[in-house]
Amino acid sequence: MLLSTPVWADETGPTKAPSRPKNIVIMIGDGMGPSYTSAYRYYKDNPDTEEVEQTVFDRLLVGMASTYPASVSGYVTDSAAAATALATGVKSYNGAISVDTQKQPLPTILEKAKSLGLSTGVAVTSQINHATPAAFLAHNESRKNYDALALSYLETNADVFLGGGQKYFPPALLEQFKAKGYQHISRFEDLASITQPKVLGLFAEVQLPWAIDEKDARKLSTLTQKALSLLSQNDQGFVLLVEGSLIDWAGHNNDIATAMGEMDEFSNAIEVVEQFVREHPDTLMVITADHNTGGLSIGVDGNYSWNPEILRNISASTDTLALAAITGEQWQADLARGLGFELSEEEVAKLNVARMQGLETMAVAIRHLIDKRTDTGWTTDGHTGTDVQVFAAGPASELFNGHQDNTDIANKIFSLLPKPKKPKS
Amino acid sequence: MLLSTPVWADETGPTKAPSRPKNIVIMIGDGMGPSYTSAYRYYKDNPDTEEVEQTVFDRLLVGMASTYPASVSGYVTDSAAAATALATGVKSYNGAISVDTQKQPLPTILEKAKSLGLSTGVAVTSQINHATPAAFLAHNESRKNYDALALSYLETNADVFLGGGQKYFPPALLEQFKAKGYQHISRFEDLASITQPKVLGLFAEVQLPWAIDEKDARKLSTLTQKALSLLSQNDQGFVLLVEGSLIDWAGHNNDIATAMGEMDEFSNAIEVVEQFVREHPDTLMVITADHNTGGLSIGVDGNYSWNPEILRNISASTDTLALAAITGEQWQADLARGLGFELSEEEVAKLNVARMQGLETMAVAIRHLIDKRTDTGWTTDGHTGTDVQVFAAGPASELFNGHQDNTDIANKIFSLLPKPKKPKS
Repeated sequence: MLLSTPVWADETGPTKAPSRPKNIVIMIGDGMGPSYTSAYRYYKDNPDTEEVEQTVFDRLLVGMASTYPASVSGYVTDSAAAATALATGVKSYNGAISVDTQKQPLPTILEKAKSLGLSTGVAVTSQINHATPAAFLAHNESRKNYDALALSYLETNADVFLGGGQKYFPPALLEQFKAKGYQHISRFEDLASITQPKVLGLFAEVQLPWAIDEKDARKLSTLTQKALSLLSQNDQGFVLLVEGSLIDWAGHNNDIATAMGEMDEFSNAIEVVEQFVREHPDTLMVITADHNTGGLSIGVDGNYSWNPEILRNISASTDTLALAAITGEQWQADLARGLGFELSEEEVAKLNVARMQGLETMAVAIRHLIDKRTDTGWTTDGHTGTDVQVFAAGPASELFNGHQDNTDIANKIFSLLPKPKKPKS
Repeated sequence: MLLSTPVWADETGPTKAPSRPKNIVIMIGDGMGPSYTSAYRYYKDNPDTEEVEQTVFDRLLVGMASTYPASVSGYVTDSAAAATALATGVKSYNGAISVDTQKQPLPTILEKAKSLGLSTGVAVTSQINHATPAAFLAHNESRKNYDALALSYLETNADVFLGGGQKYFPPALLEQFKAKGYQHISRFEDLASITQPKVLGLFAEVQLPWAIDEKDARKLSTLTQKALSLLSQNDQGFVLLVEGSLIDWAGHNNDIATAMGEMDEFSNAIEVVEQFVREHPDTLMVITADHNTGGLSIGVDGNYSWNPEILRNISASTDTLALAAITGEQWQADLARGLGFELSEEEVAKLNVARMQGLETMAVAIRHLIDKRTDTGWTTDGHTGTDVQVFAAGPASELFNGHQDNTDIANKIFSLLPKPKKPKS
């Protein structure tokens, strides 16, 4: 197949889809630079076949985007400035939550959609008031003002909040949400009982557990499915933000096994949306990353190799493995079982030293061991300025082809929202 | 401008271009992964304007490509396997020059084009028998067999060879090329005297000098311009390979200043081809990288910054600066002048130690100093497995939109070559 065709082309034909979407799903893989999607392909490769299987990212790639913040913050963005760009179409300083460089509020896509009668929502794996969702919903001069951001969500009138962040929503604030008509839930298994908006679902004190620690829990894809079913009850349409938030957190930790687990669940969530787009050809999905995290590299130290087969056998996050190794008596055997390979004497010696220095040092030592075995490289525990990819399907998805700036993505989405109805004269 | 439109759309309109190109220019930025084109944008940014100016890469981006070699070589390719994939549409082992995993020769795009009556040529900054051009022209079980590759060029019947590599073409071999009708030149200034094919132009013992060491020489773009003017004399069309070979070499050296110089001259060469495409709308240009080199990162060690303004002032390659510093008496002042900034006491102390260990150690020390000042990171002196970008313009350029494998690029180009004429019955 030479021409790249949309996945649903066989069913409806590209000409039958409307030119302007009714619904828009924006998906952000936080920190998911090009090395993450490449690595994920090799992580998911079936070793029993000669070919390397394509991923959902390969299927949906249409372009790339630059991520630099306002010039006052140089060329490397943080998640707040990047989310502000993606939510408002305006570049700001690192730390800004949808305010400009003069700290004045900037209209966001979700606010505009709400004002036009569309439903809006967010489904994320971080706390719901973390930088990315916050920039789509609220305004603050600093991403660090978590309590103020949580409080400001009361004014958003958004229909769906799903993610973590219980610690930022004390009982008094929850009462205010209930008074506004929100159902509040905090147990993941209660999600099934929610059949209509509005909902405030907070399923963790801060962020959700690492996906690799809850095999088959499929939390982000389940949240995404629920958000779609709730928001699509509005005949006027909706805008939903989905974020694979913890890809970035694993990247900051330079933790490749945990990052691949987060990528896998973000990929599951994308497939949920892709299926929704197939069934609702009036829905546009646009996926990107806010920036690249960690300077991840596939191959390191002159070695022309990368060994994801090791990652496929690791059964828990390095945080969980380190905790077990710190507290357990049979820690060497337990750790080898969790990692899926026997430890060498040299590895045991290094881990023994690290173990005596506590949990965080032990987790770092396990990550280094995995990096060494897999030939994974990192340059930073922060962000880098490499462009990120853009993926899209559905009506007007061709707008996102080729190179663009992150602010262009927002401005294209703004241009696709319905026009305000003129008042009758 | 929301929709990405081809650069010549104003002049001819996309519907007026033929659907199948007469001429094809394949351009390879060796080692030029996504971090290189992003870094280059910031390196070229005009500091006097608030916006960041787009580069030729931004203007032409259409997709990305995976680069993994045949499974026998894992997931990280070398330049030979990558060039084999791009030249033949078949994956092979690292080291292979257009032979398959059984070491059997694979037909290349340039061979196919030649057999169909098109003219063919290469213009590169490495020796012309280095892995990338070699895989488009010849076959060998190992990229290291430079002499055999040079000899085999006699049989290619290619019309234009421009680049380096005098040491691989001894007088007896040159005589054989002359006997086949090739003009041989070895001085860059003699290029102007060449007005028709065939030509064998070898302008350096091995590779051409670093672009940063010859400001305004514009060698690759000049070679490209000459190749276009020679090859376009064939009414049947042509296929030209242009390679910015030394981007990769600078990447292997982890030398950001020299890499940006090579990117700049590759960019100049792309602009030459872009102008040719404007004037000849029957020409397709496809640009990609064979792989990513060095694990370059824009930002390092937790710093959310990258400082290309330092790079803009560096007046020579680190090799040249190191040589001058090793041999000169006023080396500290000379080096500061070459780098464009004053050296700190700590920097001078480190350089003093390195200087006593010789040229290569001194060059590495200067690179580390520049990395530290600019917040540039690297993970390897080899290659990494991150996907690379694909850029295209001209007829059928839309074939290259979205994600593809490197072998797909070759197979798409094969499909665009003219069909063989049927013999009259």
